[in-house]
Amino acid sequence: MLSKATIKFIKSLQVKKYRKQEQCFVVEGGKSVEELLGSDFEVVQVIATSAFLSESRAPLRGEVTEVPESILETLGEFRTNRTAIAVARMKPNTPIAVSDAEYALVLDDIHDPGNLGTIIRTADWYGIGKIIVSPETADFYGSKVITSTMGSFTRVQLYYTDLAPYLSTCKLPVYGAFLEGKDVHHISFKRGGLLVVGSESHGISPDIERFVTEKITIPRVGKAESLNAAVATAVICDNLRRGVPR
Amino acid sequence: MLSKATIKFIKSLQVKKYRKQEQCFVVEGGKSVEELLGSDFEVVQVIATSAFLSESRAPLRGEVTEVPESILETLGEFRTNRTAIAVARMKPNTPIAVSDAEYALVLDDIHDPGNLGTIIRTADWYGIGKIIVSPETADFYGSKVITSTMGSFTRVQLYYTDLAPYLSTCKLPVYGAFLEGKDVHHISFKRGGLLVVGSESHGISPDIERFVTEKITIPRVGKAESLNAAVATAVICDNLRRGVPR
Repeated sequence: MLSKATIKFIKSLQVKKYRKQEQCFVVEGGKSVEELLGSDFEVVQVIATSAFLSESRAPLRGEVTEVPESILETLGEFRTNRTAIAVARMKPNTPIAVSDAEYALVLDDIHDPGNLGTIIRTADWYGIGKIIVSPETADFYGSKVITSTMGSFTRVQLYYTDLAPYLSTCKLPVYGAFLEGKDVHHISFKRGGLLVVGSESHGISPDIERFVTEKITIPRVGKAESLNAAVATAVICDNLRRGVPR
Repeated sequence: MLSKATIKFIKSLQVKKYRKQEQCFVVEGGKSVEELLGSDFEVVQVIATSAFLSESRAPLRGEVTEVPESILETLGEFRTNRTAIAVARMKPNTPIAVSDAEYALVLDDIHDPGNLGTIIRTADWYGIGKIIVSPETADFYGSKVITSTMGSFTRVQLYYTDLAPYLSTCKLPVYGAFLEGKDVHHISFKRGGLLVVGSESHGISPDIERFVTEKITIPRVGKAESLNAAVATAVICDNLRRGVPR
């Protein structure tokens, strides 16, 4: 049985202000909760159907409450959440060191939570676990972001910081996509570096552009003016990983 | 001045049933309306601010009404629409012929309107203008789809049909992405063919899989279970277009 206070607490975490205050966030849906349980996040609470609780392959952690589907539907932000919801503790926002033998993403104001989630999922697919993020980028801990990472939120590390000071001390190659740059199909990518992803509406801002050491372009055959930010990130990552021994 | 009947008509087009009945759809936002005006769609109505009407580079068509921003905000589905909205006539759902010198996409139940829009935008970027779509795929004429194509809806042709009968008569190579297929980096794509994109949650259905002549895989370096459907489509299109003379 869920107390009114618990329900109120979980609902309050839909709002960034309360997430920050409580240092907690919500994970919705069976698959995502299972990934959470198998991760190094501190799990505060798991609320799930008996089916989820008996079938979950990951060990249960935190306070566990069994509820019927009908309760779960009302708890989360998304209607499709029918098996589990969890509350976990946010991780501290700590600086990320990137060596010259690995790649990290730098997100310059990705405002759309769905785009941020998809970029995180894509980074995880391509083995990129470090993401440096501008303060104006969507909140990693929002439900829409967490949900659209499809579990990849457990495997990437995000660091929110002002990008210009961060990039000014960086000695790695910095790649960024522009409409006029070198064809991404003909670039010999270095062993490691940073890939800057620009905002959905304005691309890479001038303040950040000056740190880009290699401007790249995804060749266009048709007439669309631009590609979606997550799509462009994926295409560049795919080119980056070509020929890399696995 | 807008009549109550016009406002009611435009709002009704947010619902698929009424779009079908009226054979009309709504285009929101200045950029999309400009693309519409420059396209071969029949334009029924344009409702826009004086700034849009005086600055639009495309010739105005249909019944034109000037309104203040405050009215536009209440008319559309999206809050961010501040300059123009238009009503256009749907095109008939006619079969698409695909020659062996070109590529077309085949969408096997893409349910999410944002994904469909992003796939259309991506197809347009890569010069693919023909898309064959299962009846269960999101409605092309929904506002969320139209908006997320970023204007590319004017340059692609969609044909809704049962995919199995369509594919059974097709003589082209049929590519499809699976977790176990040939590495997309090592495929010599033919001059033309079909690329099947599977649904967000289930991938390509078994009923459609049997028509796939070449199973391909996007190599994974990290740990994500899958890629977003639009992202995977883009990565394959980019590989498809590599080395193609432009």
